[in-house]
Amino acid sequence: MENLNGLKRTHYCGDLRENNIGEEVVLMGWVQKKRNLGGLVFVDLRDIRGICQIVFDNDISEEAFEKAEKLGSEYVIAIKGKVFERQSKNPNIPTGDIEVFANEIKILNKSQTPPIYIKDDDEVSENLRLKYRYLDLRKPSMQKNLILRHKVANIVRNYLSENNFLEIETPFLTKPTPEGARDYLVPSRVNEGKFYALPQSPQIFKQLLMVSGMDRYFQIVKCFRDEDLRADRQPEFTQIDCEMSFVEMDDIIDIMEKMIQRIFKEVLNIDISVPFPRMPYKEAMERYGSDKPDIRFGFELKNISDIVKDCEFKVFSSTVENGGSVRGINVKGYADKFTRKNITSLEEYVKTYGAKGLAWIKVTNEGVTSPIAKFFSEEKMNQILDKMEAKEGDLLLFVADKDKVVFDSLGNLRNEVAKRLEILDKNEFKFLWVTEFPLFEYDEEENRYVAMHHPFTSPVDEDIEKLENDKENVRAKAYDIVLNGFEIGGGSIRIHNEEVQKKMFKALGFSEEEAYDKFGFLLDAFKYGTPPHGGIAFGFDRLIMLLAGEDNIRQVIAFPKTQNASCPMTNAPAIADEKQLEELNIKLDLSE
Amino acid sequence: MENLNGLKRTHYCGDLRENNIGEEVVLMGWVQKKRNLGGLVFVDLRDIRGICQIVFDNDISEEAFEKAEKLGSEYVIAIKGKVFERQSKNPNIPTGDIEVFANEIKILNKSQTPPIYIKDDDEVSENLRLKYRYLDLRKPSMQKNLILRHKVANIVRNYLSENNFLEIETPFLTKPTPEGARDYLVPSRVNEGKFYALPQSPQIFKQLLMVSGMDRYFQIVKCFRDEDLRADRQPEFTQIDCEMSFVEMDDIIDIMEKMIQRIFKEVLNIDISVPFPRMPYKEAMERYGSDKPDIRFGFELKNISDIVKDCEFKVFSSTVENGGSVRGINVKGYADKFTRKNITSLEEYVKTYGAKGLAWIKVTNEGVTSPIAKFFSEEKMNQILDKMEAKEGDLLLFVADKDKVVFDSLGNLRNEVAKRLEILDKNEFKFLWVTEFPLFEYDEEENRYVAMHHPFTSPVDEDIEKLENDKENVRAKAYDIVLNGFEIGGGSIRIHNEEVQKKMFKALGFSEEEAYDKFGFLLDAFKYGTPPHGGIAFGFDRLIMLLAGEDNIRQVIAFPKTQNASCPMTNAPAIADEKQLEELNIKLDLSE
Repeated sequence: MENLNGLKRTHYCGDLRENNIGEEVVLMGWVQKKRNLGGLVFVDLRDIRGICQIVFDNDISEEAFEKAEKLGSEYVIAIKGKVFERQSKNPNIPTGDIEVFANEIKILNKSQTPPIYIKDDDEVSENLRLKYRYLDLRKPSMQKNLILRHKVANIVRNYLSENNFLEIETPFLTKPTPEGARDYLVPSRVNEGKFYALPQSPQIFKQLLMVSGMDRYFQIVKCFRDEDLRADRQPEFTQIDCEMSFVEMDDIIDIMEKMIQRIFKEVLNIDISVPFPRMPYKEAMERYGSDKPDIRFGFELKNISDIVKDCEFKVFSSTVENGGSVRGINVKGYADKFTRKNITSLEEYVKTYGAKGLAWIKVTNEGVTSPIAKFFSEEKMNQILDKMEAKEGDLLLFVADKDKVVFDSLGNLRNEVAKRLEILDKNEFKFLWVTEFPLFEYDEEENRYVAMHHPFTSPVDEDIEKLENDKENVRAKAYDIVLNGFEIGGGSIRIHNEEVQKKMFKALGFSEEEAYDKFGFLLDAFKYGTPPHGGIAFGFDRLIMLLAGEDNIRQVIAFPKTQNASCPMTNAPAIADEKQLEELNIKLDLSE
Repeated sequence: MENLNGLKRTHYCGDLRENNIGEEVVLMGWVQKKRNLGGLVFVDLRDIRGICQIVFDNDISEEAFEKAEKLGSEYVIAIKGKVFERQSKNPNIPTGDIEVFANEIKILNKSQTPPIYIKDDDEVSENLRLKYRYLDLRKPSMQKNLILRHKVANIVRNYLSENNFLEIETPFLTKPTPEGARDYLVPSRVNEGKFYALPQSPQIFKQLLMVSGMDRYFQIVKCFRDEDLRADRQPEFTQIDCEMSFVEMDDIIDIMEKMIQRIFKEVLNIDISVPFPRMPYKEAMERYGSDKPDIRFGFELKNISDIVKDCEFKVFSSTVENGGSVRGINVKGYADKFTRKNITSLEEYVKTYGAKGLAWIKVTNEGVTSPIAKFFSEEKMNQILDKMEAKEGDLLLFVADKDKVVFDSLGNLRNEVAKRLEILDKNEFKFLWVTEFPLFEYDEEENRYVAMHHPFTSPVDEDIEKLENDKENVRAKAYDIVLNGFEIGGGSIRIHNEEVQKKMFKALGFSEEEAYDKFGFLLDAFKYGTPPHGGIAFGFDRLIMLLAGEDNIRQVIAFPKTQNASCPMTNAPAIADEKQLEELNIKLDLSE
């Protein structure tokens, strides 16, 4: 193996074009492929910018030719040579018009045969990919994703800086979050028996920065939640976290829409038009059964409770009688895509969301086909078809249950049906603001109302009087931004008025003492001139995932964790040193 | 208290100038000062950009006037008014040429009397400042520091992006560091009995990114070390972390010098000339007794061991005899600034670095004055004066001991003397690269050689053969960047050759098995085509501290920790919930 000894790269492999013909170049990279052909050695040399063909000719340099003959896959080499026009051009790669005839080669490192192929269509298990992540990241698609991530972070930082936001770092070793998700704890060595918590978000600190007059804050920052992981969750994730003083909801929405617009223009060259549509939470639930509806397609929910409340089909009528509802979606024009077997599988699907069954009606050229048709008079059936705006070729799907179950089932069913029909276009981007979220939700376990977002979210002005006696109907000055069915961000205007804050705590069932116990320093801060303020946080991983057209956030994170929060490459987490646990004043307490 | 109700700020207070005269403006901010004068109310209104004078006149709006009369310090207000040329201009503030006559005011929030004054020269204890950090950060000087920090981060990111570096996020929940400082641990709930460690630096991940072909990486990132805190250390600190492939030391130094140059130009408008001087570690120790010398001033160390090795002053001669050395500094021209009492205090100072005493010689117009003069013949004394380049008015200070103690004592004494003489100019910036660090240092406790930087630092090529039998003299391809006596960054070229890595581990006393145990996945990675690579990390907090002209990094961190790693504002760390500890499978194990 050889050293560089002062040799300097002149170009990236992937950057060479026709206009470089005739130049002497020095390239460095990995051997993607080597083949002997007609007495020459051809090497596809790869670096982060792409692949370039290198030719070794015995007549140019015997030494280089002999070394090239011995190259293996993923060897690291440096070559010196001259750029020529290629005999047989390759229109499939950007450097396909040229090739480099090498007169010198240095073998900088060898490689064993890699356990995974360095190509995008490698069909290897994700676990193996994560174990050898350093090889997996050699794939052009993965490099492209990380380059995209870098680029978007730059655009966001530049945009926010231009708009007078300051990036200010907030602590990672902080205090456990009251009223939040589960914290990751960090035992303190110096402060015996005490623990730091890793931040679930910089929420409290960014509000304090507004109190301190920093005016506009942002941070692209890691946050931590020790929750059970789903496909698009990681124990550590990245947020674009923003907060502004002296603003109302419209100001925040306006500035953030323009940020999104700039990202899509600069990264995908797509013009996104602003303002984005807005929809109150209640409408989103009624129409889509979801507070993050994918509005790229229809299949909206309709409520047929009134029609079926006294029908003979007991499943429907008794549900309405017991305070539930019967709602359905119209899978417009796709009736012939769903066999009975398909529908049974959809029924299994909605059962995972608590539905007890899935009723269906197909509208064919011979009238309706449906196992429940017999329960309805022609008039009733026509009313249902009318309400559902059903025409020939439509499939209607119904769930009858408590509202929560109906919304959950049909909201997810909408997406599932669209997915199975393959009608979702990854290159279509539909944004939506969902607004007027409920301020509270009832916590069955704790037997009290809890804050849906956090206890500092401001109620809508005209609902303040409902804080005491009509909590169910208090709307929050909270907003989520939804893209293609994914919540990519959310925020709120915060309470800055001490009186309102007191009412809020009372509504949450805290005594003044309890409130102070949980949020003391923030309440103190609020006494000394807190400006009106609000903010938003975007899930950066998810945003990048959608921009990259990927289905899973692990594709846009360099070193992600698996579903059980471990890393197959480093084997983190690991057993700790006894001595260190002692220093931290803790010991293991394992269940048998 | 009132709401904005659609009112929008048109300008920042601090931005108004003569060219705004005649404009209708809406300003929002805090009441810095209010006074009644000649039937008018004057308010100094403060926001993040500065202060502007607002005038309330009963004749313009009775309502606004009456509300203004009731304002207190730190009330938050919005005003609408017209900009006028000021009668009596105030040349001390940028907005001193104008004032705004208000016709409307909204009181957005009240304030109790703050526990600390919102002004820069407030002489309050740091603990109180940290407890009320949200008020402390209202001070213009603190806001200026955080704005500077934001600006430098932007410059760094833009510079590195232009130079093909990609910012790539590395994990915070990772594996304990072998051979490093003390880690912060994070118990895993899902993986019973196991722990993550917070990263001391992304060292291993950035090297893996080079293995993965990412070519050039950077990150401005939080790192964590659970060490005892000094004035300029924090448990969490921020690094500008960089790594490059296909480079040697000169390439890294070159690109980083230009980054520093750009920062100083854009932030302070100072031209820093490159290249910076370089000095091998050995020379730095010999000349300055330090591997991070402040080269803004002289007082260099001189070795007089040869001269005094057989003198009658036993303290000197026996030290040399026992393998130690006698060295001194010449405090040139400042003899009259140091009384005997001063010198005694310097002696106390060097004793904290292990010196047993401090010998001294003053050169006056009547010859030398010194308690040790009597031990030396005139010839010897002249040799000493000669060696020390001593002239009339000079003070010579000597320490005799083992080299380590001599260097430590005199190296620090140099700085202390300069500090006491107040000859250090904060606006002079002298950079230095210290190179050729020893690869190993002897660990008395572990009774073996350990890596001075880390086990992946490459030895200098011509020293590889010394790895086995002459460890003491193996130099590393490591380099520190020093500014005014502060190490602001450091890095190295890494080993990418498997053979050299094996020799390195052998030199560290690891069997192949032990090495694999500690660094398994990195060693695996190195088998599959590792490019030559190296990098550097800058201490971002310290760099900002020096740019801001501050003496302590807490002045440039929004929410720092105290010396015992706690936060007086949030009271972090805190007692954890029993239930949560149970979930984490740990319990407290407190010493009595």
